[in-house]
Amino acid sequence: MAEATEFKAIGTRPVRPDGVDKVTGRAQFGADLNLPNMLYGKVLRSPHAHARIRRIDLDAARAMPGVHAVVSGADFPGAQHGEIGGEGGGDVADVAKNVMARDKVLYHGHPLAAVAATSQAIAEAALAAIEVEYEVLTPVLDLEAAMAPDAVLVNENCFTKNLPEPAEKPSNIASVMTLARGNVDEGFELADVIVEGEYRIPMAHQGYIEPHACTATVNESGQATVWTCTQGHFALRTQTANILDMSVADLKFIASEIGGGFGGKTVVYLEPVAVMLSTQARRPVKMVMSREEVFRASGPAAGSCAKIRVGAKKDGTITAATAWLAYEAGAFEGAPMGPGAMCVFAPYDLENFRVEGFDVLVNKPKVAAYRAPGAPQSMHAMESALDDLARELNMDPIDLRLKNAVAEGSQAAYGPKFPAIGFRECLEAAKAHPNYQKPVPEGAGRGVAAGFWFNAGMESSAEVHINEDGTVQIIEGSPDIGGSRASMALMAAETLGVPYEKIRVLVGDTEASGFNNVTGGSRTTFATGMAVIQACEDIIAQCKDRAAKTWGVDADQVEWEDGQAIPAPGVNAELKPLTLAEIMKTAARTGGPILGRAALNARGPGAGFSVNFGDLKVDRETGKVDVLSFTAIQDAGKAIHPAYVEGQMQGGAVQGLGWALNEEYIFDGNGVLENPGFLDYRIPVASDMPMIDTQIIEVPNPSHPFGVRGVGETPIVAPLAVAANAVRDAIGRRVHDLPLSPPNVLAAIEEG
Amino acid sequence: MAEATEFKAIGTRPVRPDGVDKVTGRAQFGADLNLPNMLYGKVLRSPHAHARIRRIDLDAARAMPGVHAVVSGADFPGAQHGEIGGEGGGDVADVAKNVMARDKVLYHGHPLAAVAATSQAIAEAALAAIEVEYEVLTPVLDLEAAMAPDAVLVNENCFTKNLPEPAEKPSNIASVMTLARGNVDEGFELADVIVEGEYRIPMAHQGYIEPHACTATVNESGQATVWTCTQGHFALRTQTANILDMSVADLKFIASEIGGGFGGKTVVYLEPVAVMLSTQARRPVKMVMSREEVFRASGPAAGSCAKIRVGAKKDGTITAATAWLAYEAGAFEGAPMGPGAMCVFAPYDLENFRVEGFDVLVNKPKVAAYRAPGAPQSMHAMESALDDLARELNMDPIDLRLKNAVAEGSQAAYGPKFPAIGFRECLEAAKAHPNYQKPVPEGAGRGVAAGFWFNAGMESSAEVHINEDGTVQIIEGSPDIGGSRASMALMAAETLGVPYEKIRVLVGDTEASGFNNVTGGSRTTFATGMAVIQACEDIIAQCKDRAAKTWGVDADQVEWEDGQAIPAPGVNAELKPLTLAEIMKTAARTGGPILGRAALNARGPGAGFSVNFGDLKVDRETGKVDVLSFTAIQDAGKAIHPAYVEGQMQGGAVQGLGWALNEEYIFDGNGVLENPGFLDYRIPVASDMPMIDTQIIEVPNPSHPFGVRGVGETPIVAPLAVAANAVRDAIGRRVHDLPLSPPNVLAAIEEG
Repeated sequence: MAEATEFKAIGTRPVRPDGVDKVTGRAQFGADLNLPNMLYGKVLRSPHAHARIRRIDLDAARAMPGVHAVVSGADFPGAQHGEIGGEGGGDVADVAKNVMARDKVLYHGHPLAAVAATSQAIAEAALAAIEVEYEVLTPVLDLEAAMAPDAVLVNENCFTKNLPEPAEKPSNIASVMTLARGNVDEGFELADVIVEGEYRIPMAHQGYIEPHACTATVNESGQATVWTCTQGHFALRTQTANILDMSVADLKFIASEIGGGFGGKTVVYLEPVAVMLSTQARRPVKMVMSREEVFRASGPAAGSCAKIRVGAKKDGTITAATAWLAYEAGAFEGAPMGPGAMCVFAPYDLENFRVEGFDVLVNKPKVAAYRAPGAPQSMHAMESALDDLARELNMDPIDLRLKNAVAEGSQAAYGPKFPAIGFRECLEAAKAHPNYQKPVPEGAGRGVAAGFWFNAGMESSAEVHINEDGTVQIIEGSPDIGGSRASMALMAAETLGVPYEKIRVLVGDTEASGFNNVTGGSRTTFATGMAVIQACEDIIAQCKDRAAKTWGVDADQVEWEDGQAIPAPGVNAELKPLTLAEIMKTAARTGGPILGRAALNARGPGAGFSVNFGDLKVDRETGKVDVLSFTAIQDAGKAIHPAYVEGQMQGGAVQGLGWALNEEYIFDGNGVLENPGFLDYRIPVASDMPMIDTQIIEVPNPSHPFGVRGVGETPIVAPLAVAANAVRDAIGRRVHDLPLSPPNVLAAIEEG
Repeated sequence: MAEATEFKAIGTRPVRPDGVDKVTGRAQFGADLNLPNMLYGKVLRSPHAHARIRRIDLDAARAMPGVHAVVSGADFPGAQHGEIGGEGGGDVADVAKNVMARDKVLYHGHPLAAVAATSQAIAEAALAAIEVEYEVLTPVLDLEAAMAPDAVLVNENCFTKNLPEPAEKPSNIASVMTLARGNVDEGFELADVIVEGEYRIPMAHQGYIEPHACTATVNESGQATVWTCTQGHFALRTQTANILDMSVADLKFIASEIGGGFGGKTVVYLEPVAVMLSTQARRPVKMVMSREEVFRASGPAAGSCAKIRVGAKKDGTITAATAWLAYEAGAFEGAPMGPGAMCVFAPYDLENFRVEGFDVLVNKPKVAAYRAPGAPQSMHAMESALDDLARELNMDPIDLRLKNAVAEGSQAAYGPKFPAIGFRECLEAAKAHPNYQKPVPEGAGRGVAAGFWFNAGMESSAEVHINEDGTVQIIEGSPDIGGSRASMALMAAETLGVPYEKIRVLVGDTEASGFNNVTGGSRTTFATGMAVIQACEDIIAQCKDRAAKTWGVDADQVEWEDGQAIPAPGVNAELKPLTLAEIMKTAARTGGPILGRAALNARGPGAGFSVNFGDLKVDRETGKVDVLSFTAIQDAGKAIHPAYVEGQMQGGAVQGLGWALNEEYIFDGNGVLENPGFLDYRIPVASDMPMIDTQIIEVPNPSHPFGVRGVGETPIVAPLAVAANAVRDAIGRRVHDLPLSPPNVLAAIEEG
């Protein structure tokens, strides 16, 4: 890239500051904190997917030696309504009931009581001693059946939102939405070719390595400190304060290092329970989910059903498209119907389209965000349909997309006009890529697909302190998942003009750091980075003032260059430049310590586009699909730390391929998850995957000083359709539903 | 006070935020941190007060099972020179040698090696296994003898500083100073009465309840985190970085709660050793001093010898005064000769005076600051002499002082002109005080004395974050010793106009907080408080901006009143005031989070004056002195939290009386401290003391927005002479030397 030469720090690939600690086992993750006198908290979970709680008796558990606290829904305050403050959306009142059931349990694994005891064994025995009487209800498990007017209701008080007329009777459809432009009927009439398809994708889990874990301790003044593994300790603090009806000021949340989240660690599960148990026990309480609990009762990605229809002229111009998109919300509303609907046609410049979305309650765990929430499901459908269309038109699939691709100035299907974006550049890079030029290996098929994600801005803040030796301390509050300490330090190094090695980045707790929204929405390097850059600019302004005082000149006679204050052209040229270290040496005389700060609600995160393609081989005897090669191309705007951008692209590709090929929540007829462990829920491991090839495209985001776009979510979007299209290519038939697991693929082969 | 009504929060007496934690045992002090895999560090200390280290063999200790690190002076880098950054002054190179001896041991208890082992018992066994060969030298123990030209030298490379001509040969006198005005010979010729005296005070210890303790852990990148009980984690970080030749950025210092410091916890003892041991062991290392180690090898207050001569006319006008002041530095230069010399005549408006000061090396522990360092010793002498003078003149001792007292505009003996000060107000309040009007009880004597301390400003910084519910988080870096969290919250409450209860104060670690100098010099409420006030003003300016955006008016059309933005007079009166909470509700739309910050080098801390008097009874058979009543009157400028100001006054009185009546370092002829424990080194306990009566005078300091002066050190200055003067009054003879312990007082009685 031409721009690369403009930068000194940005675009380099230093080791992440937390790297050595992480590879030597020193880093402290959620479950690593142990406090004197600590108790172990455990959760009693519903054995039914749908039941009314008739009676719950905690007395026997409370009486057990070693048990110091026992709580159930009745111990929690009435639900406070409010934004949950994370990425997933929804209402805190629902989260409160998800954290601890009140009258009904709504999925197998739904918490309904919790204990804290001196050992895990005693805690488990205490759970067994809790007596519960249930009235078992029929579980609602099938997405499409749940939408029927006469379906059993998950929530008798749920009335569909956003209908043209207020709903008259309750429904499992929590809300609907419509996006439309032009006239689809007329559009389809203009079409030479029309393709249609229905695509189903089951719930899948983010599969983060680290289970949810937290430790809470409440002091005698009622103030709680909570260590937790999270993507956003501020959001979790807000949620906990609302759920427990506490002042935000009485909750201190400390984010541990995090072993993956991908959207799933933006919402509370254990934290309010641990605070409640610690309040009752007057001792610290640690809670750690087992892997089984993570699968059964954290927030997987929504299962979905998508119906797509696309019409095009012979030259490939799309004349009309419709999408019908239903998403499983799980037990409480909040499926990613909105973003799914807004993304489905986002890469294409369509005159006529219509999208309908449905957020549907089922007796399954409440879904959470998972990288680009909603987009993989809807875009898998659209990108599969486009693949069919290219075949019908006998066009190269990249050419078909180029024909319809949005560019700067195009009006996005979801509303605004695009500023500079890199979709066409990605498509052209894919077409020119050596991997695309190579023939498809014998027995394999090739799939191509595009991906899109809005990316988010949201609120961030940062502070910068200059140490007395000129080294730099940055304080921000965005948990570091993908290497953001390194990207913050690089942007600070670039802005201040000091070496990367002289910069330290603290991910501060909720007391130490200004407010930062979650590390999610691919927003951290963009938005928190922008705050860091602005805080560094604040530092530079102050350093120029200090140099001016030292030199006895006006502040506007000082410039900043390469980490030094220098006299402006025309000002006394004998003045020697002052480095940060030199400015600090005399700082006591020129005004004291130097602190910079910035806070913002970042706008214009820069839409992220990707084009992926891969060659997949299908074993016709077993139906097993192997990925032979995979190439991910994505517009990063500007890659601050290219290795970590590539890492996001590779990780997203692997997660998308896992979802495409193997991952699925399998429920029995009673709503019991049958594969709640990594043995039966099979995520890809290193030996399953080839090296993922990456190519970063850099079309700078005009809203960011260095051109950064979010990069963390877009990579998971395209791989689902890449896999589906490659399998279609390989076996000559489309498998509409995911996963492309051996039984499903074999069935398709045998059907054909 | 008339001003009290101006304030809503300031002047009230809420419970300190850390109070409940402290009384319920939840607060974490220096020794309370335990880390997994932690080792115990122990120090090998010299059994000689003065010796050359011929050989030190660590091999046997290193070979012991369970021993993970063994270090001696040779493992430490060469000494870096620099300011120690605390209150005590001196050079880091000396501190480095004090932390770990190199060629010579200079006092009994001087560290010369250290080990880290899996248990304290193994660590002690390892110390015993270290072989050291000493060449024992004659110890230098007597202050005046040490000053002789032919004295044995503590440091062969010490040449007296500040002599008119450079010293030609080494000396135990590290430096000298002179302060003078007018012509003392002429002044004494004008005098009708001249009094003279020599006063000796032995070394004494601050007697903080909590011994020094720290835990260090160094990660595989060489970055250290140190938890320590200190008055200034930033100063200790600087010292440790210099001693270990590390980047400041690689050291994170976290201040625990602190069980007293009084100046003695502003300098490193264990911290660099713990970091070095942890680096070698690659495990956390905890080090805790025993009480004996605290006495033998931390930094007591300097012993002193003072010679005073004061001449006056019959009406009490002082015509001349001289002071000769020698202070024991201990093994390294840095006795508080400077402040002692500057304070001795500070309360009085003298035309002719001369002060000579001497900083003298002896083979005793290196002294540290102790509340108003240097002043109690020199002012004990002057205030005793004034008492003698009042007797000679047959004047009331308060009248004598009123006759000569400095006031606004007087030129201080140490240089500058005083702005508004409250010395005369204190004297007048003392004279009018009911306790002074009462007759002296039978068998008792009454003493009066004045006290003075400059107070310090120095560097502070603060940040303020407004939480999403309008509650307020303050971040500053001054360890809270005397209730400064409460005083910061009160000043923030007053400035912002929000209730005290909605404010939280974090004493941040060196990563989280901007730079703050030590909690010492009575500077915290003054200087860090000023930073908090300015940071709150920064918040108000931003809140007015946000309100202006919300209302669609200009920022200058918004005012701030009672915690709310209100439209300025003349602006649309229908606009409803916006509270902090309301401003935060829409903050995402008006610009994101709200962060305030301020940094400063505070000037004009406001001189602190006190007048104390007390009635003390002497048992003529045993020489035991009992304090019957004691009244402390002091100008606080403005008492932010009056109860904590009174606490400072009471604590200072008790410490001063302890030093006067009982406390002393008793060395044997070899320089071995004979009373290194609270059984033999007797500090006053509650049953020894009456309730100390207090009266706060408020003459606002013009350099502080609320008028605050430092209050923490002045209280210890006057009590020494109050006790001496009361005993003089009771037994009819002056006991010149302290302590006024039973043997000393009895000897005086028997002599008379």
